[in-house]
Amino acid sequence: MMTLPDQYRAVRAHSEALCAPLEAEDYVVQPVPDVSPPKWHLGHTTWFFETFLLRPHLPGYAVFDPAYDFVFNSYYETVGARVVRTDRGNLSRPTVADVYRYRRHIDAAMAQLLKSPLAADLRAVVELGLNHEQQHQELLLTDIKYILGHNPLLPAYRAGVEALPAAAATGAAVPPVRLAAGLYQIGFTGAGFCFDNELGRHTVYLAEAEVAGALVTNAEYLAFMAAGGYTDFRPWHAEGWEWVKAHGVRAPLYWHFVDGAWCRYDFGAGGLTPVPPHEPVAHVSYYEAAAYAAWRGARLPTEIEWEAAAPHFAWGTRWEWTESAYLPYPGYRKAPGAIGEYNGKFMVSQMVLRGASVATPPGHSRPTYRNFFHPPLRWQFTGIRLARTVGL
Amino acid sequence: MMTLPDQYRAVRAHSEALCAPLEAEDYVVQPVPDVSPPKWHLGHTTWFFETFLLRPHLPGYAVFDPAYDFVFNSYYETVGARVVRTDRGNLSRPTVADVYRYRRHIDAAMAQLLKSPLAADLRAVVELGLNHEQQHQELLLTDIKYILGHNPLLPAYRAGVEALPAAAATGAAVPPVRLAAGLYQIGFTGAGFCFDNELGRHTVYLAEAEVAGALVTNAEYLAFMAAGGYTDFRPWHAEGWEWVKAHGVRAPLYWHFVDGAWCRYDFGAGGLTPVPPHEPVAHVSYYEAAAYAAWRGARLPTEIEWEAAAPHFAWGTRWEWTESAYLPYPGYRKAPGAIGEYNGKFMVSQMVLRGASVATPPGHSRPTYRNFFHPPLRWQFTGIRLARTVGL
Amino acid sequence: MMTLPDQYRAVRAHSEALCAPLEAEDYVVQPVPDVSPPKWHLGHTTWFFETFLLRPHLPGYAVFDPAYDFVFNSYYETVGARVVRTDRGNLSRPTVADVYRYRRHIDAAMAQLLKSPLAADLRAVVELGLNHEQQHQELLLTDIKYILGHNPLLPAYRAGVEALPAAAATGAAVPPVRLAAGLYQIGFTGAGFCFDNELGRHTVYLAEAEVAGALVTNAEYLAFMAAGGYTDFRPWHAEGWEWVKAHGVRAPLYWHFVDGAWCRYDFGAGGLTPVPPHEPVAHVSYYEAAAYAAWRGARLPTEIEWEAAAPHFAWGTRWEWTESAYLPYPGYRKAPGAIGEYNGKFMVSQMVLRGASVATPPGHSRPTYRNFFHPPLRWQFTGIRLARTVGL
Amino acid sequence: MMTLPDQYRAVRAHSEALCAPLEAEDYVVQPVPDVSPPKWHLGHTTWFFETFLLRPHLPGYAVFDPAYDFVFNSYYETVGARVVRTDRGNLSRPTVADVYRYRRHIDAAMAQLLKSPLAADLRAVVELGLNHEQQHQELLLTDIKYILGHNPLLPAYRAGVEALPAAAATGAAVPPVRLAAGLYQIGFTGAGFCFDNELGRHTVYLAEAEVAGALVTNAEYLAFMAAGGYTDFRPWHAEGWEWVKAHGVRAPLYWHFVDGAWCRYDFGAGGLTPVPPHEPVAHVSYYEAAAYAAWRGARLPTEIEWEAAAPHFAWGTRWEWTESAYLPYPGYRKAPGAIGEYNGKFMVSQMVLRGASVATPPGHSRPTYRNFFHPPLRWQFTGIRLARTVGL
Repeated sequence: MMTLPDQYRAVRAHSEALCAPLEAEDYVVQPVPDVSPPKWHLGHTTWFFETFLLRPHLPGYAVFDPAYDFVFNSYYETVGARVVRTDRGNLSRPTVADVYRYRRHIDAAMAQLLKSPLAADLRAVVELGLNHEQQHQELLLTDIKYILGHNPLLPAYRAGVEALPAAAATGAAVPPVRLAAGLYQIGFTGAGFCFDNELGRHTVYLAEAEVAGALVTNAEYLAFMAAGGYTDFRPWHAEGWEWVKAHGVRAPLYWHFVDGAWCRYDFGAGGLTPVPPHEPVAHVSYYEAAAYAAWRGARLPTEIEWEAAAPHFAWGTRWEWTESAYLPYPGYRKAPGAIGEYNGKFMVSQMVLRGASVATPPGHSRPTYRNFFHPPLRWQFTGIRLARTVGL
Repeated sequence: MMTLPDQYRAVRAHSEALCAPLEAEDYVVQPVPDVSPPKWHLGHTTWFFETFLLRPHLPGYAVFDPAYDFVFNSYYETVGARVVRTDRGNLSRPTVADVYRYRRHIDAAMAQLLKSPLAADLRAVVELGLNHEQQHQELLLTDIKYILGHNPLLPAYRAGVEALPAAAATGAAVPPVRLAAGLYQIGFTGAGFCFDNELGRHTVYLAEAEVAGALVTNAEYLAFMAAGGYTDFRPWHAEGWEWVKAHGVRAPLYWHFVDGAWCRYDFGAGGLTPVPPHEPVAHVSYYEAAAYAAWRGARLPTEIEWEAAAPHFAWGTRWEWTESAYLPYPGYRKAPGAIGEYNGKFMVSQMVLRGASVATPPGHSRPTYRNFFHPPLRWQFTGIRLARTVGL
Repeated sequence: MMTLPDQYRAVRAHSEALCAPLEAEDYVVQPVPDVSPPKWHLGHTTWFFETFLLRPHLPGYAVFDPAYDFVFNSYYETVGARVVRTDRGNLSRPTVADVYRYRRHIDAAMAQLLKSPLAADLRAVVELGLNHEQQHQELLLTDIKYILGHNPLLPAYRAGVEALPAAAATGAAVPPVRLAAGLYQIGFTGAGFCFDNELGRHTVYLAEAEVAGALVTNAEYLAFMAAGGYTDFRPWHAEGWEWVKAHGVRAPLYWHFVDGAWCRYDFGAGGLTPVPPHEPVAHVSYYEAAAYAAWRGARLPTEIEWEAAAPHFAWGTRWEWTESAYLPYPGYRKAPGAIGEYNGKFMVSQMVLRGASVATPPGHSRPTYRNFFHPPLRWQFTGIRLARTVGL
Repeated sequence: MMTLPDQYRAVRAHSEALCAPLEAEDYVVQPVPDVSPPKWHLGHTTWFFETFLLRPHLPGYAVFDPAYDFVFNSYYETVGARVVRTDRGNLSRPTVADVYRYRRHIDAAMAQLLKSPLAADLRAVVELGLNHEQQHQELLLTDIKYILGHNPLLPAYRAGVEALPAAAATGAAVPPVRLAAGLYQIGFTGAGFCFDNELGRHTVYLAEAEVAGALVTNAEYLAFMAAGGYTDFRPWHAEGWEWVKAHGVRAPLYWHFVDGAWCRYDFGAGGLTPVPPHEPVAHVSYYEAAAYAAWRGARLPTEIEWEAAAPHFAWGTRWEWTESAYLPYPGYRKAPGAIGEYNGKFMVSQMVLRGASVATPPGHSRPTYRNFFHPPLRWQFTGIRLARTVGL
């Protein structure tokens, strides 16, 4: 178990290691609203420590630059007058070098704050800040993939970035997990960090169900496409079908039909390579995941079923869409103050994803982790696991 | 218990009675996409009987007008070539008189079909068609209210249209309903009609909770407004707060601040009248309902809690927003064919409302009924009931 | 020469005669923002007389309904508080019958005002009101065509509505008009009514040019289409080419490709009939007119060339796009007050059309008349006449 | 007179000198569609020489990177298959260093091409390429101003960038220029370069008019604002007034009301400084220019009047909006091929600006130069000169 200062250094260093292959220009662009510029991630995660720890709790702390408060604040209410509205993707300044200077400044001050043991509540904020930065590490990777994968030169990021464990890469067949009907305990328990949305461990009754032991592979998904999956409205939600038609969707994100074959942007090597049939499909929206499941005569698992079955299958290469909307657990309570804005205010119109992905920092996820995105989004490493109610 | 032909006549007559106060012009307009022209409702409900009963099952049936198939079809896939795209609110033809002739034609043919007893599956389609028409009766009323209530002349519809039972109108205080922790059976059971989304009665475990005995009143909601409810972002979902800012929302729909007081459009008498303090608030969005509840330190009930508690409180004047997203029950199955498109394809991005409203046709609702709308919508008679998890 | 009261009665009666074939529902809809509901035209032209003549100048005049002021005012600034924003196409009230009652009320009051001779300035306002109503008569026809021609039932309006003089209908060949280089006098002169934008007769120098003696026919336009006119970007303005791609334009408005042949909506008889080859093409945008001309190695005439050449060719069946932007003449002056808003404020971003069309009320146009529309609009009866600078 | 190779080196060096103060990040962003990233300007102007000169005319020329063809082509039709759509502001690659390498490659090849004397037609293309690059030099400056002036840190570009000649900076009063009625010759004549849209020198008749000797100053424009210029609809075009309301416009671009005074972004020194009263107003739209003129009881000059009067007043600090739409001269002809796309296809919906600005490269403009922009645009250094028809 690492000490807190060691944890801090490790997490902070990992963010910068993720950016090591980038050119300065790659840090700046925001091709779509959901994708943030890498330098914004580096600055915003840093601003978190400055705002919630250094400013209120380090005596004599000198603010790096007061203007950064509204450049790197993702929260609603900022203080002070501003004449120009911030728009992340239009910001050439602060430069990348400025942002790294900002990180050095905050890291030095944090080292000082962490020198002596912290009170439990402050320690909790440091842990939240580190987990917050880990969340942004996953976004850093997916946003970098989007930026490079939508550039006409299709440049490479770094070899091995999407590497899968052998079992996942070969699509090895595994039997489904059977869940017996009955009461289950759901939600976080035990020591260690968790987000507020996992708390309030509670009892849930499940009907008998079966959850697939493996994720849907590219080969399986190609069969859906070959069978007219994107041209037959029947397996789709009405809203999903509108999405297909409005955007001319015909394949997962990053797939291109070139010279008669489906290829995909190769994040590790650059350019396009043929879709590997045995890997789990990635970069699908909730609509696509649900339509695929319906076409198979199945459905997606609920997040409860997923959590109950998770000990019995391998997970961690794809964020798995569930059939559960992102809503508070019965015992959910918002923390007071700005920290309370962390999760609760997003609990509407999104779907829960469970698991983790090849882009998730090691040690960041756990079986009770609740990730969430809007149904049409697919720039994360999202995948599909099937489920069925037994007896139907 | 009415015979099926009697039921048919009663339901069909009620739709037309609802339109009796209208001028021909009122039947035609579509001020916003969610509001359909009344004549479209009259035609579409009629088209249902023609398409799913008369065409396939009445020997020798002569189609009224083949062009009506794509004028009145709300479903995705239509057959045949068409040179002009249908857009409900732009259709001056068929005229109102044409639509009534269409109704006469279908009613006569249905009378013939209903003369001899039907097989169970056909009888089920007739019942579905009648319940479908009842759903459109509620929409007819809310759409007419929108059409007249957004006309600068603020014309009257019909006296008493929003009349409430005495208890609801006076905001009588009632104690909350306490739900013990434990297993509950949820979903439709017994004889009689229900929609497919209510089926699959199943066991659910509930934590101990309290559900309010009465709906939130206008007076209570005015207190929220007076306390800055629409100007403080804290009780709102992020998405709800964006909605407030984007549309400049400062009160429920149909409310206007005139000469220092909040008034509302008076559907029964026309014009504006002061907001009656003791009536349950109406025409609020999910965002507003949830923000109000958060401001009160409470939450909305889940649809499960609502169904479990419903036998113990009065309901039926407002559709009550719940904290549940509209998702399939564990045992949900789509019916095959076009009828299967009825509910399942809408099970994403919407919230469940329970109960009924002053606009619901008598006998149409029941405690297991699952209504659903998108979070920002508020032209239905929507209201707020509070809940709390006990022990928090 | 008719007396002013006779003129008044004739013009007012003509508006109502144009609406005689309509059903009440046809008066209400507004399928696109540029197309107004017929009842709005009937009310707005009436409001003009009430606002600029009866209210200020008829002693004891009783306003019909004060609310009509913002229902039928197309001008920017209205007085008084209003709680509901007016949106023409959503207004089911006032009803058609109300609007006709309004017309009766104003006509009676106008008859009284016109009983005794008017001062010159008042007489000018009456004449402006009548010409204003004639402009709306043309819009009434084109708007009715749009409403019926975009209805999937493609109903008929009235036989002969688009009838052409024999010469125009047969596309008889006529030699071009040669304009010698030199000075020309342009703008209205003489007695009788004209709009302020025609005034300020002034000298213009023209280079030698040739203006076609006849309009481009459907057959000629079909040749452009057959030669790939809508798929080759070269003859188009950049903005026109964007318009073609954004809207998938492949033919003039009201044309449909059915069973291998180009047909058009038949306003007189309803339904679709084959495009008559010898008639002048109608319902083209400025972009299409300019692209056609460029494809022919020609251009459109300027409005000055048109006015100089007009005495030497037949005109009046199509509004003819010119290569002139709608801008003030050197001597243009706005009238003071609301009347001054009539023309000047529209003098930007529009192109001038000259001539008249089969939809123009008899006697309403003249060679100095300056009509104007935005480049993409084509629901008017617009056509194409070619020109060339001599010596190029 | 410089030799062509010297001209080439001078122009190319000037583009890079303009970018010298930039950070790499500043080269990348595109805050609004009209503003291009500086590296795109550097690449696109280079692509022009590669495409129209080196590829077709330098034997043995090796293309730098075939992918650059669609990265830097601003024209419609590109060849070859592409899987990813180019969007200028999202392109982190090619990097700034890549673009400079591209410039070195092309400059070396151009040096070789220019070593021996060129045929007249090739020489014309080189001159067009240099003038094209000069146009982009002005855009480089105005786009850099937009990028930095819309950054919340309001960084400085370079001291003196907006420096004005003494007379312009002090708003010295000068008498108007009187134009006698009569014939004038308009359009380019003589030796030297001009664009195709200036050609076809032709005769024009002008009425007697007066053109102001000086531009409208900030102090004069502040008087318009103080008199309610942005809140009274009367001097505005209808379309201009909609623009004011839709965007909440209350001052020229880059102006901010801070602590009770109007300041503007200081491009040279960074931050905000008080608006200098005697300088000519800059960064106004055509709508604002025309409304200001109308408020003064005047109008803008036509481009013809401007060209006739230009020898008699000082110009060159602001592009001056005229009352002329951008249309072809009577003798205008498009050049064949891609070069012909240069000007003609933009001749609709734009207004002509005459003169030059502080951002125009030295020697690039002349009295016959026709600049053009859409009416709402104001990120160029646009200004206002008044005119009046005499005798009105």
